[in-house]
Amino acid sequence: MTTQSDRATVTAEQHAREEELVQRVLDSFAGTPDERLQQIMQSAVRHLHAFLRDVRLTEQEWKQGIDFLTAVGHITDDRRQEFILLSDTLGASMQTIAINNEACADATEATVFGPFFVEDAPRIDLGGDIAGGASGQPCWIEGSVRDTNGAPVPGARIEVWEADDDGFYDVQYADGRVACRAHLFSDAEGRYRFWAVTPTPYPIPYDGPVGAMLAATGRSPMRASHLHFMVTAPGLRTLVTHIFVRGDELLASDSVFGVKESLIKDFVEEPAGASPPDGRDLAGRSWSHARFDIVLAPADA
Amino acid sequence: MTTQSDRATVTAEQHAREEELVQRVLDSFAGTPDERLQQIMQSAVRHLHAFLRDVRLTEQEWKQGIDFLTAVGHITDDRRQEFILLSDTLGASMQTIAINNEACADATEATVFGPFFVEDAPRIDLGGDIAGGASGQPCWIEGSVRDTNGAPVPGARIEVWEADDDGFYDVQYADGRVACRAHLFSDAEGRYRFWAVTPTPYPIPYDGPVGAMLAATGRSPMRASHLHFMVTAPGLRTLVTHIFVRGDELLASDSVFGVKESLIKDFVEEPAGASPPDGRDLAGRSWSHARFDIVLAPADA
Repeated sequence: MTTQSDRATVTAEQHAREEELVQRVLDSFAGTPDERLQQIMQSAVRHLHAFLRDVRLTEQEWKQGIDFLTAVGHITDDRRQEFILLSDTLGASMQTIAINNEACADATEATVFGPFFVEDAPRIDLGGDIAGGASGQPCWIEGSVRDTNGAPVPGARIEVWEADDDGFYDVQYADGRVACRAHLFSDAEGRYRFWAVTPTPYPIPYDGPVGAMLAATGRSPMRASHLHFMVTAPGLRTLVTHIFVRGDELLASDSVFGVKESLIKDFVEEPAGASPPDGRDLAGRSWSHARFDIVLAPADA
Repeated sequence: MTTQSDRATVTAEQHAREEELVQRVLDSFAGTPDERLQQIMQSAVRHLHAFLRDVRLTEQEWKQGIDFLTAVGHITDDRRQEFILLSDTLGASMQTIAINNEACADATEATVFGPFFVEDAPRIDLGGDIAGGASGQPCWIEGSVRDTNGAPVPGARIEVWEADDDGFYDVQYADGRVACRAHLFSDAEGRYRFWAVTPTPYPIPYDGPVGAMLAATGRSPMRASHLHFMVTAPGLRTLVTHIFVRGDELLASDSVFGVKESLIKDFVEEPAGASPPDGRDLAGRSWSHARFDIVLAPADA
């Protein structure tokens, strides 16, 4: 890091001028009626100015920053949210998730929500199929929902959603299809099971300014293969998370930093003809299976 | 400040998770081909995450932040630059100016450029009038241009521009007028003099998201009364600055933090009938005068 060395080249007079300005900006928020807003604005000012001073931002670079934010704003519309993409690719979304889902005993870790959740996805029975005709290798997922005391959570609502094996969510197609998303409920022993498709990797939208930032910094737009979960139950903290596929070469470079070691699961490949747990006729296709045991923190944790 | 106390409430496990994430995001920029871009991105990430963690930003507040930036993006067009306004009102523009115009002996301090400069403003002779028919009290400005060794700078190009006494720059009118802006050159002894109008205060545009931020934080959108200067001469650092009016009650709350003590000047009021330095017939109006002696730093300072 260059902070100390850069700052050291600044004269005492220059340092005093910069410090005085920071203090003046902080003071301008002294009359903010809402205490929380004041705290947020003052912290934002403190860190923004520290950034400018650490890197000794040039006026041309400042202009480039303004132009970048302007481009992010102009590509954003009702269907595309480039500011969220920017937050995601700087790890800010994931850090916010981490801050708001504090570590609690062995509770399952949360990860980014993403833009593809849809309310009122179809309900399936235990053992049903979320694919809805989507292309992809059949994948059997099963597991349990428990609380941090180890007690089963019956009737937990489990929302699941994922991309098809072309890398697209249903809402990215123009034909109004509903596929690769559903909700189900855990049984009396807190157990659940369903069919999905084996997760496959896909890129975040990279044809805009955030994509240009990734390209300029040598980063990949790819997301590691994953399946989304949102699990809710009375008295327990809502869990928004994914499971990832062990062995996926993208685990270490996920473009939105969603991967947690504890969320990487074994997706076991089975050959065509191997009989699945529920005896379903897979019409000669190969399939996979994974287990995901979920632990929910108390709501007030 | 709440940084320490807030962070102290976090468990060691939680702290480790947040730190690990920051490191992972920093590492993702390790392959950035351009070293300066890498430095900027990594510093931005460091300060962005420190901000999120310092204030323990909630997911709802994160969403409000995304919505705010989206609104800033959507109001920005070819004629209105709300991101610059945001940078201005957070003191980031002024800090960038400060960083790039380091203190150098008794060189005149720089301040914000603002959005109202226009290339190719009319040339006036020494003692000419920049007003171009704009409303306002006549104001005689004179002074000298010197370098930091005290040597006069002859032929320095002096661009001056200001709002009329209704608080508008010429470019804010739809009629294409050119008023309250001009350029002139210092004489063989580095001296200059011209007529302008006495500066008056005006608000920055406050009908957008930045205005809403100012209102929510109890801040005023007003700028202290000022007259813009840009002074260029071969071998010397270009100076972009304003002069302000001593006694203006807005000096302490300038909405873009442009005021520096050294830039506050005495604007002396003269009654109607008092004869101005050049004997001009002011048609019975009162007038004012101010002196601004300019010192330019070496170009390589």
